[in-house]
Amino acid sequence: MNKNPVGVFDSGIGGLTVVKEIRKILPNENIVYLGDTARLPYGTKSVDAIIKFSLENTQFLISRGAKFIVIACYSSTSVALDIVQKNISVPVIGVIKPGVKRALEITKTGRVGVIGTSLTIYSGAYEKIFREIDDQCQVLGKACPLFVPLVEEGWLDHGATELIARSYLEPLKDDNIDTLLLGCTHFPLLMDVFKEIMDDINYVDASREVGLKLARELKRLGLEHPGKGGNLSIYLTDLSMNFKEIGERFLGEKMKNFSRVSIGGK
Amino acid sequence: MNKNPVGVFDSGIGGLTVVKEIRKILPNENIVYLGDTARLPYGTKSVDAIIKFSLENTQFLISRGAKFIVIACYSSTSVALDIVQKNISVPVIGVIKPGVKRALEITKTGRVGVIGTSLTIYSGAYEKIFREIDDQCQVLGKACPLFVPLVEEGWLDHGATELIARSYLEPLKDDNIDTLLLGCTHFPLLMDVFKEIMDDINYVDASREVGLKLARELKRLGLEHPGKGGNLSIYLTDLSMNFKEIGERFLGEKMKNFSRVSIGGK
Repeated sequence: MNKNPVGVFDSGIGGLTVVKEIRKILPNENIVYLGDTARLPYGTKSVDAIIKFSLENTQFLISRGAKFIVIACYSSTSVALDIVQKNISVPVIGVIKPGVKRALEITKTGRVGVIGTSLTIYSGAYEKIFREIDDQCQVLGKACPLFVPLVEEGWLDHGATELIARSYLEPLKDDNIDTLLLGCTHFPLLMDVFKEIMDDINYVDASREVGLKLARELKRLGLEHPGKGGNLSIYLTDLSMNFKEIGERFLGEKMKNFSRVSIGGK
Repeated sequence: MNKNPVGVFDSGIGGLTVVKEIRKILPNENIVYLGDTARLPYGTKSVDAIIKFSLENTQFLISRGAKFIVIACYSSTSVALDIVQKNISVPVIGVIKPGVKRALEITKTGRVGVIGTSLTIYSGAYEKIFREIDDQCQVLGKACPLFVPLVEEGWLDHGATELIARSYLEPLKDDNIDTLLLGCTHFPLLMDVFKEIMDDINYVDASREVGLKLARELKRLGLEHPGKGGNLSIYLTDLSMNFKEIGERFLGEKMKNFSRVSIGGK
């Protein structure tokens, strides 16, 4: 048992979909979230920069008492997970592997689709993890760069969103995938649109799988919070104009407790 | 008369729409283009960082012999134009004022719409310049964050693009603007879509106005190239996966002569 908070970081506020799932699965845990909005996007930065930012973010969460670190950022998980794990004494999980494992558990045909931003898909990070676990599976990656701005606009049921989703998903449908992994923190908000286009396949929401993995790990390590009613504190390195409106869309609840904080001189 | 090249820089490759217009208007000028793709987007960076990057980019273009500098980046023009002008001996123009002047020349009702990225519109940079020139005009700004990713996807005549454009432009139509200024380097590629939605107003393409302003200034200062058939050299600080395909869409011709270059240690 441990009353300290779980620390979660992302380059922006998309990681709040991971927090949403953690709060559903583990309502008694305290959570400290750090969104490094001043330095986003990470995907276009050098590997060295992403490692430096990831270590700084982790250090901030540990200074806030974090007993466990969740990296809710795809770029950080891709290039910095191992290094963060080696550098700190608390346990760390990333956002990629839990979804991959779940997809491989439920696929029957071994044909799995993955959708994400261009950076996530073209980096090959997903394909590498899939192959490490099962070298027989067929992974069909599809970059969907318009979904993030559509979600940030809040156009979840706009006619354009359905047309765009059809353009992106039809090729995966034609390839007869039986499982689709949503490899981006923003995408769970479009689940209803995806299901209208392909309703006879399995969906894996990476944000939810991270929450489930965290629950298993906290239990295994005896780190669960003993009390009731966990708090959520949100720190952002920059407060953009509409972060609150967008953040609450991801979080599925009001953002009550947020502050601006400086990390790494930004 | 001066055979040296005109230097143009942007945070990315969108500024190639400005180069396209310059090459149409001034086909004999040599052009050196720098796209600071390793450090984009500038809009989310601090003012100090944007000033530093803008000075470094200018210095690079001058080291390549530039006789005139065109800042084809909205964020740089907003915060660094004056400082760049003070720091170097060659003439410098930005990408904001030429479009504003043209819009004010052709509006009859004084009701002008401006569309751009969220950063351009919410920074108020356009409104400030409009007011400096004419404090009676009514400027209606509309942030259109989905246009940049739509253009980068190449979905210029996708059904979704028209639906999205309608959502963005209908409020401006209802506000009875008689002139619309395209305040983003990516937007001229969507001109046909805009005209389908509003065909009875004036359009001002900021990229074209910058080209016309450059032509007037070169003539005034006696800096025109005396010969025929100008060359174009393109330098980028990072070569992303599909920069060539997207760049050629902006440029309207093949990108023959491009290289990667390091600026400011990146």
